[in-house]
Amino acid sequence: MTSGEMLGSFFNQNGYSTARMRQIWSDENRVKVVCQAEVAVAYAMAKNGRIPKRAYDEISSKLVFDNIDLRQLKIESARAGHFLAGFVKVVQPLFDDESGQYVHFGAASEDIEDTAFVLQLKQSDAVLKDYLRQLGDVLYQLCEKYKTTITAAVAHKTFAAPTTLGFKLGIVLNELDHLMTKLDSLGPFTFAGSLAGADGTSSMLGSDYRKIEHDFCEHLGLATPEMYWHTQRERFTEYSHVETMIAQVIGRLGKNLLYMSETIVGEFQEGYAPGRQGSTVVPTVRNPYMVEAVVNLATVIRNEMGLMYDTMSVDGEKDTTVWRDLYVALPEMTMYLSGQLNYAINILQFGKFSPQRMLKNLAADDGTMYSGALMLKLAESMGRENAHNLLVALRAKADDQEIPLKQLFYSDSTISQYLSHADLDGLMTPSGHVGNAIAKTNTILNLYSKRHLTDDQRKEDSHGTKN
Amino acid sequence: MTSGEMLGSFFNQNGYSTARMRQIWSDENRVKVVCQAEVAVAYAMAKNGRIPKRAYDEISSKLVFDNIDLRQLKIESARAGHFLAGFVKVVQPLFDDESGQYVHFGAASEDIEDTAFVLQLKQSDAVLKDYLRQLGDVLYQLCEKYKTTITAAVAHKTFAAPTTLGFKLGIVLNELDHLMTKLDSLGPFTFAGSLAGADGTSSMLGSDYRKIEHDFCEHLGLATPEMYWHTQRERFTEYSHVETMIAQVIGRLGKNLLYMSETIVGEFQEGYAPGRQGSTVVPTVRNPYMVEAVVNLATVIRNEMGLMYDTMSVDGEKDTTVWRDLYVALPEMTMYLSGQLNYAINILQFGKFSPQRMLKNLAADDGTMYSGALMLKLAESMGRENAHNLLVALRAKADDQEIPLKQLFYSDSTISQYLSHADLDGLMTPSGHVGNAIAKTNTILNLYSKRHLTDDQRKEDSHGTKN
Amino acid sequence: MTSGEMLGSFFNQNGYSTARMRQIWSDENRVKVVCQAEVAVAYAMAKNGRIPKRAYDEISSKLVFDNIDLRQLKIESARAGHFLAGFVKVVQPLFDDESGQYVHFGAASEDIEDTAFVLQLKQSDAVLKDYLRQLGDVLYQLCEKYKTTITAAVAHKTFAAPTTLGFKLGIVLNELDHLMTKLDSLGPFTFAGSLAGADGTSSMLGSDYRKIEHDFCEHLGLATPEMYWHTQRERFTEYSHVETMIAQVIGRLGKNLLYMSETIVGEFQEGYAPGRQGSTVVPTVRNPYMVEAVVNLATVIRNEMGLMYDTMSVDGEKDTTVWRDLYVALPEMTMYLSGQLNYAINILQFGKFSPQRMLKNLAADDGTMYSGALMLKLAESMGRENAHNLLVALRAKADDQEIPLKQLFYSDSTISQYLSHADLDGLMTPSGHVGNAIAKTNTILNLYSKRHLTDDQRKEDSHGTKN
Amino acid sequence: MTSGEMLGSFFNQNGYSTARMRQIWSDENRVKVVCQAEVAVAYAMAKNGRIPKRAYDEISSKLVFDNIDLRQLKIESARAGHFLAGFVKVVQPLFDDESGQYVHFGAASEDIEDTAFVLQLKQSDAVLKDYLRQLGDVLYQLCEKYKTTITAAVAHKTFAAPTTLGFKLGIVLNELDHLMTKLDSLGPFTFAGSLAGADGTSSMLGSDYRKIEHDFCEHLGLATPEMYWHTQRERFTEYSHVETMIAQVIGRLGKNLLYMSETIVGEFQEGYAPGRQGSTVVPTVRNPYMVEAVVNLATVIRNEMGLMYDTMSVDGEKDTTVWRDLYVALPEMTMYLSGQLNYAINILQFGKFSPQRMLKNLAADDGTMYSGALMLKLAESMGRENAHNLLVALRAKADDQEIPLKQLFYSDSTISQYLSHADLDGLMTPSGHVGNAIAKTNTILNLYSKRHLTDDQRKEDSHGTKN
Repeated sequence: MTSGEMLGSFFNQNGYSTARMRQIWSDENRVKVVCQAEVAVAYAMAKNGRIPKRAYDEISSKLVFDNIDLRQLKIESARAGHFLAGFVKVVQPLFDDESGQYVHFGAASEDIEDTAFVLQLKQSDAVLKDYLRQLGDVLYQLCEKYKTTITAAVAHKTFAAPTTLGFKLGIVLNELDHLMTKLDSLGPFTFAGSLAGADGTSSMLGSDYRKIEHDFCEHLGLATPEMYWHTQRERFTEYSHVETMIAQVIGRLGKNLLYMSETIVGEFQEGYAPGRQGSTVVPTVRNPYMVEAVVNLATVIRNEMGLMYDTMSVDGEKDTTVWRDLYVALPEMTMYLSGQLNYAINILQFGKFSPQRMLKNLAADDGTMYSGALMLKLAESMGRENAHNLLVALRAKADDQEIPLKQLFYSDSTISQYLSHADLDGLMTPSGHVGNAIAKTNTILNLYSKRHLTDDQRKEDSHGTKN
Repeated sequence: MTSGEMLGSFFNQNGYSTARMRQIWSDENRVKVVCQAEVAVAYAMAKNGRIPKRAYDEISSKLVFDNIDLRQLKIESARAGHFLAGFVKVVQPLFDDESGQYVHFGAASEDIEDTAFVLQLKQSDAVLKDYLRQLGDVLYQLCEKYKTTITAAVAHKTFAAPTTLGFKLGIVLNELDHLMTKLDSLGPFTFAGSLAGADGTSSMLGSDYRKIEHDFCEHLGLATPEMYWHTQRERFTEYSHVETMIAQVIGRLGKNLLYMSETIVGEFQEGYAPGRQGSTVVPTVRNPYMVEAVVNLATVIRNEMGLMYDTMSVDGEKDTTVWRDLYVALPEMTMYLSGQLNYAINILQFGKFSPQRMLKNLAADDGTMYSGALMLKLAESMGRENAHNLLVALRAKADDQEIPLKQLFYSDSTISQYLSHADLDGLMTPSGHVGNAIAKTNTILNLYSKRHLTDDQRKEDSHGTKN
Repeated sequence: MTSGEMLGSFFNQNGYSTARMRQIWSDENRVKVVCQAEVAVAYAMAKNGRIPKRAYDEISSKLVFDNIDLRQLKIESARAGHFLAGFVKVVQPLFDDESGQYVHFGAASEDIEDTAFVLQLKQSDAVLKDYLRQLGDVLYQLCEKYKTTITAAVAHKTFAAPTTLGFKLGIVLNELDHLMTKLDSLGPFTFAGSLAGADGTSSMLGSDYRKIEHDFCEHLGLATPEMYWHTQRERFTEYSHVETMIAQVIGRLGKNLLYMSETIVGEFQEGYAPGRQGSTVVPTVRNPYMVEAVVNLATVIRNEMGLMYDTMSVDGEKDTTVWRDLYVALPEMTMYLSGQLNYAINILQFGKFSPQRMLKNLAADDGTMYSGALMLKLAESMGRENAHNLLVALRAKADDQEIPLKQLFYSDSTISQYLSHADLDGLMTPSGHVGNAIAKTNTILNLYSKRHLTDDQRKEDSHGTKN
Repeated sequence: MTSGEMLGSFFNQNGYSTARMRQIWSDENRVKVVCQAEVAVAYAMAKNGRIPKRAYDEISSKLVFDNIDLRQLKIESARAGHFLAGFVKVVQPLFDDESGQYVHFGAASEDIEDTAFVLQLKQSDAVLKDYLRQLGDVLYQLCEKYKTTITAAVAHKTFAAPTTLGFKLGIVLNELDHLMTKLDSLGPFTFAGSLAGADGTSSMLGSDYRKIEHDFCEHLGLATPEMYWHTQRERFTEYSHVETMIAQVIGRLGKNLLYMSETIVGEFQEGYAPGRQGSTVVPTVRNPYMVEAVVNLATVIRNEMGLMYDTMSVDGEKDTTVWRDLYVALPEMTMYLSGQLNYAINILQFGKFSPQRMLKNLAADDGTMYSGALMLKLAESMGRENAHNLLVALRAKADDQEIPLKQLFYSDSTISQYLSHADLDGLMTPSGHVGNAIAKTNTILNLYSKRHLTDDQRKEDSHGTKN
């Protein structure tokens, strides 16, 4: 019997996450990292002469995942009403000597819980970064590919001016660039262990507590924290916030691709592998389900932040009313983000952009998208505000008399004073407006390349970003 | 100096609310309803022999808005750190005799606060209902007007089948109908007074507390509550939830109008009164700002529900950590909703739908939107699943070979076995698919008419809904 | 490998939900209700002459859970990228004749999805109601038991007046009473089926669509909806909102029990069955984990409402960007609520209240909690406002001079003019203040009994509520 | 007539914000920064030869706040339906020559809007930092003052071990330290201007767009952004996130002070200046309203983050459906945070901690808070797990037989084997457990001093942190 929420449902979970990420947050992996944390406690305690060296050796060899009977662990944990109490009890029979007595010696439950959670988060961080790099790579290539592809900038759903597809994608790449750098910067702070006890004073460790905590953390490949942090939850809130911003950027990309996927726009279509179907009643349709999913997951992920902020209102030195939020929210966010990234990569790799359709769609504009350039041109002769007012009046005239606006540009007597038909033709050529779009795209590509591409990758496209 | 948040900014507040609604939640009106509530306390106490009749007469004549010096009230409230303590103090000089001593006699602050808040909410409820009726009326008329106007049903951004504009709008009207009925049903529960004291036991009133509370409520035109409710916040959460659902329905309408407002779709344009402008740099543009605002306010309003639910977690018998949420959220929600409704009415009244463009836009479809009907037709001869698979294969073929799908319908040998060209022509005529859309629209109109139109309104359009 | 989110984790899921509820939302049960919905389509289509009677018979006998290979279903669904396309395909081999062709005939995916979801929700509704009744019963008994048990009303964390434990619990019971009634009222609206097609016009059913949809719904024990509702999501938002309010009421109960569980308060302790432990480092502690969980789940549940409101912003006739929210949020909310109710019942059944400690704790008050009554008594002689000011001044004096306030009540010369020591002794006897608390508790019990108790239950405690 | 939402209400706004902060977000200041931004456009355009130098001189001297008629501006903006269109129009009469034509030349509305908003945010940032420094200073002093004051660490509402008040406050100080540093780090990224046009390509500026944008930003004291950012909203989301974390830390401080303010705990009382009152019905009460407000504002502030994340889902190049969220949320958050910080400073400056009561309250513990230390002591002789089980058994015995736990410690025969009465007395002396608490507090103080105190401040307390 499966649990039926989306991440647990075997029919649905791949639409919300990847197996690679789910594995990290699984019960099985949880038990693994708990074992590692308990071993590290024994290591640090033994190293500092607080428990026998032999106890550490025994603990280190016995406290491994394969020795733990998960079923028994569940039963004992449920009986104790406390996971770690159950864990400590269930591992006792593994030991032939008194070494079992030294399991968990020096640690409070929250030390193990927090540290194990950080270990899982660090593992998931590596996976996210791998996905981000893949997404960055494909976006980078698309920016190159469509650097000069003309399409409409859309403000308030309305064509505002010509721009390029490469620049539109580039803006997303540049954001990703920023957020990848930000994620990198969080690591040293976020991935710290904890050995401070139930009250945070490390009283169980005595006055050389710093040394013991340091050895504990180092053994696990984690940073030693500046201060006791069980009640300071910024590491998790901060990390999940960056995840949320990444999800929003991808969600925005999805929102824009969704617009391009509209029947009437037709500028993008997500990939349909053989056998994939769009509908049971509209058999020929190719719905952009993955793009929709990407948009949806941005919402689902950001909704969890309410819980993440709640985790910070700890009452006293331990407070499960808010601690539980963390276990609900952060693994889910991280799993959802894996699903969103996975889909985003797929969408960009296998989807098809249609530059032809983009060009054709520009014809839907009635001259409005060149009126900014026209105003500036006229402004040189008649002043900006006068030019603005003239064009506003032409708009009203076009609508009232149902004349195409562009036609009025050519026939208006004031405009004719300053601009010839040829001038107007020139002004209304889309390719004449996109110079900076290309230059800015190059800037974006160079920045991304410098910060995130490997030397090999850089070599490969060394020409690409130079034009 | 104005406060700069959107509802307080004189440049922005009308884009988020209406003056009519802001007036109700103003400080001035707050003082008025507090006066009314205090007078009602005196009324009920005097009627039940708990204070002298003369005291009530005096209080009733002196405790009126015009007698209150708001500046002084602010100063005294700030000094006391308690609004009602300041209020009771500042009104004392109004009295020549000992009647002033009887002000607030029998009431706790939360009695007055809660009851005054309910009085404001009841006033705002009347305004909302007026707006809702206006919106319902204009939607009703549009459903009638566009009952047979053909347009595409859009699933996943993709044309799915022909339908009618009237039916699309009708679905919204039907929801509004449901929510208006729901709002009506909340009144008797929501608009109740309270006279139960700081601990809810009405100990200040003695054993005839029910009678006194009843007289208090009746004097204010409010219902007598079943039970002490200062810690039972359902009345407000429930009310704001219905407001939120209304806002979402209007937001959805806005989202759909926004799609129709896209340059490339061009099926709707919101009204531009003379002098109105769309942009400083694209002078000829007519951006759908009001439609965007309607979508935005749905988000802004629903975001407040987090606070409304928080109001329910009262610790003990009074708890300002959550009570304050109510004062933040509910007035704001109600004001935002006034702004959203006001814009929605304007949009529907002055915006223009373009049936011609809708018809023209159907051409963007390549046959997909008839493939559901085609499948059912073929199913009669070859089975549903076989027909489904056939059409799925044609889709793949069309895309791979870049042949228009519709062309394949006509050329496919299997289809030809069952359907002639004329059959296919018939199947792909949009008007042949919308019979039920019209019938369902009539159902919607009849239901709305029965539940919400006045007799006069019903008479007027008695023919309209019969076809 | 389990999924690691709390509802899917075998170590944690029972702390967030019950197995009974999880079963309903499991993949297995999902397949069951999808079978039922598809059978009902065939039933209604056959009954109305749209498919052969024999096809219905076959479908009805073959489309049962035990015939479905879940593994194969998963594979085909993943290949199709569409659950129902996979489902229809995977069931085809079950049929020896052409009946399989009639599976899903007349239905769109959203018809089946929505209806199946409603079937699950209806099943879960029955479970919730059972839990609610159990909770109501135990609360009812505790109100009776502690009807006259004196304790402090607490306003702003401060003792405000004497009240009774029964009344405090009664306020919660009365809210539960209200919400149980509300939940009952939602059923007929919420639990409706849908057979309206991808565009809502029921075009696949022809002009007798109402009849077919009615037969479909009736066969499933569901209501026939007034109108096509795939884009009208109120049924789900409304239902989840009531669930959220229930969760907040229980969360508030938890918050108050948590206060009572503080070491320094000691008025409540949740049950510790033999073997249960509180901590690994503080072995003798009995932490109120279940009470904390109950508070936490109120937050977790209400956080999902953000997604529920988002489900309402459907763009066009189908929009997975928001539909997916529903599948994430509503099953989770319902499962979390099962866990919260289960814990709440356990807490109230096995926890211990300590009336002795409540009495003892009253001594922490310095006279403040009687000052309201004292003011009213003095008001009879010297006026309310004068009495108020006098007591405010005594407070300041007590604090400045570090004299116990109560002592000042006895020594103050103004008070002595009106009240003797005996009068003051009388005023400061807690039992003299709780008459209405008891009366109101009786009102609550009678209302609950009338609305929710069975005749047998009512008979049993017929005396209880009469005093 | 005031707007009635809390920030706009003259009775309430000081309970939610400070006048100093509200002034920054006022309409008046908004007009000021818009003037500055438009002047900077003219400056950069003139400097780069795009408009006459004289035009800049005129614009610079005429476009000042005192020249703007706010009433007229409101009217014109409302007519245009566009604030900047109204602004450009209303300033035209200020100019005697054609210079007015050059107002807004080269800028799009979003350039001015975004840049002006950043200018306001930068001003508010300075105010926040001032408040934070004040709060840090008072917290720092309290940590020093109460460094050795013993009180109970509270886990799950239960006394867990002895600790110090200084350490408890220190943990908050250390978090503040971290967040103040974080806030400092955001400045250079957040406070950037924008001159990129409606489509982001800076097409109005030509190919030397970087230079012009740089001059524009520099003139305003803002950073030049790496890339066009109107659709990249991280600057605001990131900033508001740090504000939210600060608010949560203060909210947590408030939550803990609220516990200490309970009648029955009595360890803290917020300041009551002469004339301040707690209640109209309980005249002698001194409710912790400001502490409650601080807790409440944490919730109110974090609730706005939903809108902030929504601002990131920009559709196309401009999208008011989400841009409006920014104007709603960020000014409000910043104002609320000013109110919260102001109250927090007041609470810590004027509130009273009661070390005596803390000591006295330790007596509520039955020995539980020493059982961790006892276990570790026993573990040396009998093993950790055995010791743990022994103490668990004693807990059960104490409860079943209603014997004080501490008494069992002394009478238990196993314990007696290893520990004398004197040993037990020593173990159960609170001051024996807080050595590390003091050491950690010193670490915190030193870190804060190094990072945030001025040299003068550091000199003053050079002894304080050395013990």
